[in-house]
Amino acid sequence: MTASTHRLGRDTSPSLDPMIALVAQDMDCVNAVILDRMQSRIPLIPELAGHLIAGGGKRMRPMLTLACARLLDYAGTGHHKLAAAVEFIHTATLLHDDVVDHSGMRRGRKTANIIWGNSASVLVGDFLFSRSFELMVEAGSLKALQILSHASAVIAEGEVNQLTAQRRIDTDESQYLEIIDAKTAALFAAACRIAAVVAERDEAEELALDSYGRNLGIAFQLVDDAIDYASDGATMGKDVGDDFRDGKVTLPVILAYARGDEEDRAFWKAAIAGHRTSDEDLAHATALMEKAGAIADTLARARHYGQLAIEALEPFDGRPARDALAEAVEFAIARAY
Amino acid sequence: MTASTHRLGRDTSPSLDPMIALVAQDMDCVNAVILDRMQSRIPLIPELAGHLIAGGGKRMRPMLTLACARLLDYAGTGHHKLAAAVEFIHTATLLHDDVVDHSGMRRGRKTANIIWGNSASVLVGDFLFSRSFELMVEAGSLKALQILSHASAVIAEGEVNQLTAQRRIDTDESQYLEIIDAKTAALFAAACRIAAVVAERDEAEELALDSYGRNLGIAFQLVDDAIDYASDGATMGKDVGDDFRDGKVTLPVILAYARGDEEDRAFWKAAIAGHRTSDEDLAHATALMEKAGAIADTLARARHYGQLAIEALEPFDGRPARDALAEAVEFAIARAY
Repeated sequence: MTASTHRLGRDTSPSLDPMIALVAQDMDCVNAVILDRMQSRIPLIPELAGHLIAGGGKRMRPMLTLACARLLDYAGTGHHKLAAAVEFIHTATLLHDDVVDHSGMRRGRKTANIIWGNSASVLVGDFLFSRSFELMVEAGSLKALQILSHASAVIAEGEVNQLTAQRRIDTDESQYLEIIDAKTAALFAAACRIAAVVAERDEAEELALDSYGRNLGIAFQLVDDAIDYASDGATMGKDVGDDFRDGKVTLPVILAYARGDEEDRAFWKAAIAGHRTSDEDLAHATALMEKAGAIADTLARARHYGQLAIEALEPFDGRPARDALAEAVEFAIARAY
Repeated sequence: MTASTHRLGRDTSPSLDPMIALVAQDMDCVNAVILDRMQSRIPLIPELAGHLIAGGGKRMRPMLTLACARLLDYAGTGHHKLAAAVEFIHTATLLHDDVVDHSGMRRGRKTANIIWGNSASVLVGDFLFSRSFELMVEAGSLKALQILSHASAVIAEGEVNQLTAQRRIDTDESQYLEIIDAKTAALFAAACRIAAVVAERDEAEELALDSYGRNLGIAFQLVDDAIDYASDGATMGKDVGDDFRDGKVTLPVILAYARGDEEDRAFWKAAIAGHRTSDEDLAHATALMEKAGAIADTLARARHYGQLAIEALEPFDGRPARDALAEAVEFAIARAY
């Protein structure tokens, strides 16, 4: 895709590099915790968990915890275990997601469920999830525990909601937003918010970081859902058209369906019901989205939420870390271009 | 089965009734918490969770938390949320177990994975697991959180260990004991131990209750594994021979294999590898166990651990609740007769 008019007003491509540089030292500590705590006497656990954890993820969520702590000039190390816990929650969710979605590829590699089977993925996910709570307990903050345990419940609720909406063409934009707010944005929000808890800041700063993370998470998921129809497997690192074949009603589908004529709608109904799954069907779906402007408008929504994320950083204007956090938002959106 | 010589020295059948009576009022509160906290805006969650939670389970684990608190004369209500959290952990584990084992029947009813599918069972399990941690956070004891989050990780580790041992006839008794200690006894131990934490008792009492719960849990699982070969579906409430068909190497199999002649061993190798799954094969397996005394000796082991559980109650001799806890051990074992 090329859409240079969609940039948020930069000349060079936005990058995660400033955020990566900002948290590099802390991230080394978090990585050490992650590697140490995914170990087990049962060899299959580090083998399976390591496949995904070492598999080229950006560690976006723990990075946000670390960057937000920097933003608040927090100088301690109390957030390292929490950041590792956030990554474990995320990893457990991915393992279970890939089972639920029958995914075959993630981050450019075969998924764990393909290599070791569904049962191993479910149980190692449970292990990482439990381990994440052990790490939170060790971090010792009941407030951070409350935020993250609540986020975990919201994520699971969102996943069930998504499962319920699957193959239902009548899913509307508000239900879709509710789903991505729960399954994706809740953990982004919590990852950012706990930095304020560890740094013992007031509720206003907690809520500002929550809002930054939540809006970034929504933008991130909107871009992901657009990419699923408008990218190639090599760029995306997972199978193209997975959402289409799974009958997931994401915003591009909702918009293309709402704006289509009778024939288009008949196609979408059949496709989401699972009766149109060929490569030709996917190409036709993409063409219908193009006609409806569905991808462009999904990305316009993503930019809107990205703007809200950047505005949430206003209380921190002038602080050195603020720009790195703002650029991370632009990076999340630029992935689509 | 009839084996009246195996009784622990009672004239009447041991019963859970004294323990049920002991905790009746507290259990009403715990049930209210369970029903309240399994609710969600997403209707599938209470529907699926309710199927299992309302499906005739004995609430053995939360009952142990309540009974141990009574034993310590704890008069507060701080353990109600923890007891509900224990039941949610257990329920989440059952939902995932049934997916992993492809089980079709539990507690005399169709399993959730059969009715709603594997994906829903995985995700609702995740929800209950998250909810259990929210409840623990609300209970406010970091120490209880530490005990239960550690138990959860140990359970998941035990489940992965069991999966690794599946279809491996070379699994030995010590690995088997390690598996059941983790997958079953750890939660029994934690359920009992947290009562001492809530009641603010010293470490000696904590450890005594941990030992009571752990040994009871091992006895409980040994009896379950015997029943899987020596009961009928109606009594057991699940499919007979599930372990056999899943290639689970439980103690009855380990003993029958170790004591069998060459022909018997060839049968067991083929059966555990998955090549002998008919009703006739199951009948032959049961006959081989009978010949080897494998069921009787599995139950003898169960009585041994049951005795250890009762001995762990020694510091509490003379307290009114002690006898109810001891009789619960006898009840767990008497299920086999």
